[in-house]
Amino acid sequence: MNDCPFCKISHESESELVALATSSVVVIPALKQRRLNRGHMLVVPIVHITRLIDFDQALVAELYSVTARVAMAVRQAFGASGVLLFQNENIPGQVLHHVHVHVVPRSGDDNFRLPDPSIEEVGREERTQQALAVRRALG
Amino acid sequence: MNDCPFCKISHESESELVALATSSVVVIPALKQRRLNRGHMLVVPIVHITRLIDFDQALVAELYSVTARVAMAVRQAFGASGVLLFQNENIPGQVLHHVHVHVVPRSGDDNFRLPDPSIEEVGREERTQQALAVRRALG
Repeated sequence: MNDCPFCKISHESESELVALATSSVVVIPALKQRRLNRGHMLVVPIVHITRLIDFDQALVAELYSVTARVAMAVRQAFGASGVLLFQNENIPGQVLHHVHVHVVPRSGDDNFRLPDPSIEEVGREERTQQALAVRRALG
Repeated sequence: MNDCPFCKISHESESELVALATSSVVVIPALKQRRLNRGHMLVVPIVHITRLIDFDQALVAELYSVTARVAMAVRQAFGASGVLLFQNENIPGQVLHHVHVHVVPRSGDDNFRLPDPSIEEVGREERTQQALAVRRALG
């Protein structure tokens, strides 16, 4: 395979960090999250594709249908009023090019900004709990 | 209909501001753009839906397949190295709830940030030229 961490995680559908796995997409907590936006999830296709234009129609539909479900689950699991959905494609400084959609819970007092230099790594135990909370909210 | 400006524009497929119109989606320049990210486009479904979860599978596929094409066209038309794709869903302060995907051209020296208080309205003439440039890049 390759050194892409998203290729690695997307092939570990049994991991405790996986909130949802379909035949083509997995959902995991982001490693780095803002303190006031905890519950930040990533929706990651299993195949290593780096541009949305290279997806076939079925994978586009699957990626964003799952994203839509995760958006609702994140709102429920983390008490957020809404979400920001975003993805970068070859932006300056980008390191991970395997396509991934960020689902960020938003609330009235979170003072959200992108980029945020104070973003921080979240421990595995907390991310495991986040994955569990999203799994439950997804039903 | 209603007072939603995206409902209005999405039913004006012949407008000079429309870079692309399919049977279910239109592409227009954003009214407000950062000075260093000119060429910021919006991909807007014609129907007034406010949550991605309420889209049917075909519309999800259409919205993001068009977004993928616009991402490549924006890179070409405005000489950007990449793009940020984002959408807000019921975030604090949000005024326009009709779903729309932002396609923002990104370049190495743009110092991008979201939100940006210095974002500004772009005149109709400049937006018309942007729509034309994207229309050409889409072929």
